[in-house]
Amino acid sequence: MTGPAAMPARSEPARSEPAPSEPAPSEPAPSDEERLARAALTYLAEPGDSVLGALLAVCEPAEVLATIKADTLPGVLGTASRAVLERALGRWRTRLPRLPADGEFADACRDGIRLVCPGDAEWPGALDRLGPARPYALWLRGNADLRFACSRSVSVVGSRAATSYGGHVAGELSADLAERGWAVVSGGAYGIDAAAHRGALAAEGVTIAILACGVDYPYPAGHADLFAAICAQGLVASEWPPGSRPARTRFLIRNRVIAALSGGTVIVEAGERSGALNTARHAAELGQPLMAVPGPVTSAQSAGCHRIIREWSAACVTRATEIIELLSPLSVPDALAPDVHGPGAQGLGALSPSDDGPCRDDLDIDSARVLDALPARGGAGTSTIAVEAGVDLDTVLRCLGQLAGLGFIERCDRGWRLRKH
Amino acid sequence: MTGPAAMPARSEPARSEPAPSEPAPSEPAPSDEERLARAALTYLAEPGDSVLGALLAVCEPAEVLATIKADTLPGVLGTASRAVLERALGRWRTRLPRLPADGEFADACRDGIRLVCPGDAEWPGALDRLGPARPYALWLRGNADLRFACSRSVSVVGSRAATSYGGHVAGELSADLAERGWAVVSGGAYGIDAAAHRGALAAEGVTIAILACGVDYPYPAGHADLFAAICAQGLVASEWPPGSRPARTRFLIRNRVIAALSGGTVIVEAGERSGALNTARHAAELGQPLMAVPGPVTSAQSAGCHRIIREWSAACVTRATEIIELLSPLSVPDALAPDVHGPGAQGLGALSPSDDGPCRDDLDIDSARVLDALPARGGAGTSTIAVEAGVDLDTVLRCLGQLAGLGFIERCDRGWRLRKH
Repeated sequence: MTGPAAMPARSEPARSEPAPSEPAPSEPAPSDEERLARAALTYLAEPGDSVLGALLAVCEPAEVLATIKADTLPGVLGTASRAVLERALGRWRTRLPRLPADGEFADACRDGIRLVCPGDAEWPGALDRLGPARPYALWLRGNADLRFACSRSVSVVGSRAATSYGGHVAGELSADLAERGWAVVSGGAYGIDAAAHRGALAAEGVTIAILACGVDYPYPAGHADLFAAICAQGLVASEWPPGSRPARTRFLIRNRVIAALSGGTVIVEAGERSGALNTARHAAELGQPLMAVPGPVTSAQSAGCHRIIREWSAACVTRATEIIELLSPLSVPDALAPDVHGPGAQGLGALSPSDDGPCRDDLDIDSARVLDALPARGGAGTSTIAVEAGVDLDTVLRCLGQLAGLGFIERCDRGWRLRKH
Repeated sequence: MTGPAAMPARSEPARSEPAPSEPAPSEPAPSDEERLARAALTYLAEPGDSVLGALLAVCEPAEVLATIKADTLPGVLGTASRAVLERALGRWRTRLPRLPADGEFADACRDGIRLVCPGDAEWPGALDRLGPARPYALWLRGNADLRFACSRSVSVVGSRAATSYGGHVAGELSADLAERGWAVVSGGAYGIDAAAHRGALAAEGVTIAILACGVDYPYPAGHADLFAAICAQGLVASEWPPGSRPARTRFLIRNRVIAALSGGTVIVEAGERSGALNTARHAAELGQPLMAVPGPVTSAQSAGCHRIIREWSAACVTRATEIIELLSPLSVPDALAPDVHGPGAQGLGALSPSDDGPCRDDLDIDSARVLDALPARGGAGTSTIAVEAGVDLDTVLRCLGQLAGLGFIERCDRGWRLRKH
């Protein structure tokens, strides 16, 4: 195998971000041998292989790789484990012919592709929440720092068969999130994913595409330009080594990484059988905020969103500030979540009785009744008003004074009338 | 005052509904004297007057009416109660001139208008949940039985400034609810309310309009035909006596009756300051199912719905079966709530990774990987498939057999290939 020069930890992209605020990784930095072994394992095993995950929890990656190559079993295993491991070694060995020859790993790292391993400064601690399903390593392309970007990130995902409504909303939300300093994580697919990436890019923010194929693999083919733009401003990441083709099962397995790399997951549009709901499930299992954007109930592409709001208790979100509030309740200053309900309408108790009209929310019930009793045209005397409002004369006089002071009514020849606005 | 003939308990509309299944009222049937007193009180006091409500909890309605007319206080009151009561008597007395003269109550009951009082067979027990805010009596017009209709009822309300989307959804939901035997309660206003009433009428169901004016008062003027149609097939109801005009405060007070008369409340469209949210608050306070229909986040008329889903835990509902399931979980047979997720997609765990394509949900992970490994064109041998799928040869052979049996793949000259569908 090649030395460290052929497998650089970073391709040193130009950027000037501060150090991430989350604590440093608990694992020691990987040795060159470990990095090469983890790179090799991404060629041999499908991500999320529970046997490999369990092995890596107790063995060094280089030991595991040597075991696969040597076709011998470690001596410490019981009978049951032995059968499982033999089977696993069998499936990993089928791919040994695919492993790049010693010295050829460097090819994988052309075009600014780099490998990030547990213990690397760029390894996001959030991935460790996946336990034994943690990626063996991540292949990256792009100019952002993965760990830093993920320290304030949200995934925005949804159907490939998005409607123009869904695409519009995904783009707007993602642009708003990016403008407020949140990295937008998505899956690089057509539809909602593409709109999310493009929205973040348009706001000159950071966006991360987690692919189910190699970071150099042109899938979907129409997204070559999009991925290039993402690399310039963010990251394209994958658990599969360069050159890997996408597959249906890979999308499913990939989704756990989208969920784990972000502080919360927003589903913008999803049909009843959309893969986005699989990502939603991972987010829920990780105990993360799960959010969904509602849409017309007449749209099949919103049916999955409505279902997870109803059945999985996903939060119903409609704008970026609501998302940020759920991700970090303490980080949202009041100015970011403006009270759109207007004065006097805090909480349940003070909702206006109509869709329009002047603000009457602060009026007590007597004053409101007196105001109702005033004729729209002409004028009315106090006793007429008292009868119409059903309040006594003293109250009418007190209320009339208050209402006049607030500018609602004015005196006229025939008593009192509504003031024109 | 007139005798009972002038104030019939029922105008005996033609209908043949079975007796309601809810228990009979706990109060004795009202005497003629009590009915006349309650009728008079609807002229003198605004509905929801807490002092009158408290008085009626301990005194006979006729006693209360006599006290108002006599301008003397009952001797049993303490000093604090005395001040409150004096004030209340003052406001009720201002309206004594409005009280129909003895013998003229019969006029109020022309055109099939009738009065329903606590203890009447048609009085819905659900109204008693309002406690001291219970209506003193209800004025009714129409051919349905209020108590029976309310035994399976749901209120469908929303903005007057409805969008075409909201009107469409309110109409469809209400028609579906009516078809399944649920009475649709609403407020008779333009917009969502009108769409709800019309939807129920179109399905030849029962609908109830709760007005904030007399049941004979033409408000809104454009709804004269609608109210006539509702009377033919359902009910128009009000706490205010015939001839009363509507007022803003009356809409607010009326809303508690809409909520109380139904088993649950559905908000179809509501702006941030819509009066429909006041009805929603009453439903929540009564401990009833509160539901909201989502809509585009770009529509201001859905903002209130989304807010009560997010902040008040209103259920996000999209079709009639979901509403019925919340109203009476045990009354919905499986056939009414079809599983639209298809086979193999029960619960969180089995969602398909894609929006389209054949149903692969039942495949184990190895079979799914083998299926992924098959080329779209040509064919592949078993060892090629094993490498591509990353599973051992025994597993490949087992999976190929299974996949062929399920009709996913077939043998060909060059090994195995996907079967055309």
